Amino acid sequence: MPRFEPKNPDYLKVAAATFDRQQAMRTLGISIARLEAGEVDLSMPYCRDWTQQNGFVHAGIITAGLDTACGIAAFTLMPAGSDILTVEFKTNLLAPARGERFAFRATVVKPGRTLTVCEARAFAANGGVESLIATMTGTLMALPRREDETLPARAGATA
Amino acid sequence: MPRFEPKNPDYLKVAAATFDRQQAMRTLGISIARLEAGEVDLSMPYCRDWTQQNGFVHAGIITAGLDTACGIAAFTLMPAGSDILTVEFKTNLLAPARGERFAFRATVVKPGRTLTVCEARAFAANGGVESLIATMTGTLMALPRREDETLPARAGATA
Amino acid sequence: MPRFEPKNPDYLKVAAATFDRQQAMRTLGISIARLEAGEVDLSMPYCRDWTQQNGFVHAGIITAGLDTACGIAAFTLMPAGSDILTVEFKTNLLAPARGERFAFRATVVKPGRTLTVCEARAFAANGGVESLIATMTGTLMALPRREDETLPARAGATA
Amino acid sequence: MPRFEPKNPDYLKVAAATFDRQQAMRTLGISIARLEAGEVDLSMPYCRDWTQQNGFVHAGIITAGLDTACGIAAFTLMPAGSDILTVEFKTNLLAPARGERFAFRATVVKPGRTLTVCEARAFAANGGVESLIATMTGTLMALPRREDETLPARAGATA
Repeated sequence: MPRFEPKNPDYLKVAAATFDRQQAMRTLGISIARLEAGEVDLSMPYCRDWTQQNGFVHAGIITAGLDTACGIAAFTLMPAGSDILTVEFKTNLLAPARGERFAFRATVVKPGRTLTVCEARAFAANGGVESLIATMTGTLMALPRREDETLPARAGATA
Repeated sequence: MPRFEPKNPDYLKVAAATFDRQQAMRTLGISIARLEAGEVDLSMPYCRDWTQQNGFVHAGIITAGLDTACGIAAFTLMPAGSDILTVEFKTNLLAPARGERFAFRATVVKPGRTLTVCEARAFAANGGVESLIATMTGTLMALPRREDETLPARAGATA
Repeated sequence: MPRFEPKNPDYLKVAAATFDRQQAMRTLGISIARLEAGEVDLSMPYCRDWTQQNGFVHAGIITAGLDTACGIAAFTLMPAGSDILTVEFKTNLLAPARGERFAFRATVVKPGRTLTVCEARAFAANGGVESLIATMTGTLMALPRREDETLPARAGATA
Repeated sequence: MPRFEPKNPDYLKVAAATFDRQQAMRTLGISIARLEAGEVDLSMPYCRDWTQQNGFVHAGIITAGLDTACGIAAFTLMPAGSDILTVEFKTNLLAPARGERFAFRATVVKPGRTLTVCEARAFAANGGVESLIATMTGTLMALPRREDETLPARAGATA
């Protein structure tokens, strides 16, 4: 039995399509590993391009994965014709982002007509062993999409 | 009169060197526009590679700029021989990250022996006009650097 | 010249009335010290009843003052007939809440039709000297008030 | 098998004693419902004294319960002779704090020598049915306690 009941029967398709339109995900090599109603797992390989001064992946890049995971998880529960934007998020960095791959796993905590709250966790995989490296709590907002635009002028935020 | 009194006379040099070791900053084309004790301005050009589904710069990339700005601002006030890591941050997205350039401006709010709290703001520049697009509050931690390592095993976080 | 243009000509009156309806503020002895469009200062005397294990005022009580300051500041800029609720906030504790009096000062950072983002600072006063003890960033939401109810069933949050 | 291994054999006793020294908990009528290594449940009855303008319990009071729950959970895993203070927390308000009783449940996510990260959830109980009303993520700091003081001057924060 699914935990959430999506309002949009095409929720998997529109969520995947929104993910695919994020050029930043392509640039970072992030892909969808699992997608369900209110839940998503993303996967990212290590790449030296995204490191900070100690050779770990930069907290902002980890945050990009967590934020998109939250956004896609929230988007699966929004009505057809919605646009989505991130209102805010908070990230706690628990351990160095050191690994061969990284997983970003988000779950909807509270879906809402306007606002949806999600939680996400980032894991680093080293030799098949995963460890928790960061957490996020974020608020996402649904906006009715205007038909005649590709860049909605009223979108209040970046996600 | 400077607002803060750096403990390390080489604070500008070590802060700039730490920034230069962040491969992620190079990849994103971010540079230091201004650097003082407890304050830093970073600058980033728009690049389609970092966009989300509506063509705006991804919230995670904006967060990368804000986080590094906080880290460098905090680092200018840490004692010589310190390593720095990000404990946590919270970002509020106020408007779409749409612009030709982006500025990330951080200020130390409370320097401390172990923990330093910073605030930062992100601005989008369009035709010479700047608008506020995001805020960050973050906590940074100073760690004594071990002499014999390049990747400190005890570093607790990613920034 | 005021920084913000209130939509409701009675903004001072309705903001003060909303504050007066908060029984928690009365219980805590918190009063309005200054009220303007988009800005408010609250004041609270020290009371042993609100202390934690070291005799300082509890972080939750400091947060209550900061949250109400944000809420009242945001409320001054909302249209007539609005209800307000807090979506989220983040508090950084910078120093022990030790003092004879405490001030909570909030400013609207970004007013919006639905969401308003505020920043607030808490100060402790000791012998006439004020020191910064905490910061808050918070998101507030405007809801159209239903005419026929005193406890709006749809209110999504507590503030 | 316990999830965490406490460093202090007296962890239950010292955690309960720290809770008992919080005058604010007594004032709010909050008590410990369950206490284990790295986990705590607190319970609070509804009281009109703590309400906001719509008759719900104020977000700051809910935050006080969540913050103390995080602090006590973290404290069970700290070494003997530690003092604890809250560095920061973030609260998302998901539903009105309306109920006969409230539960605050915290779990340690990542214990550390200096910093410990916790998550907590607040529930409202109405006629035996519980609903989630708020979440918190918080960072707590361990400090070695000085023998000769009751109010540690170096304590950096209020919890």
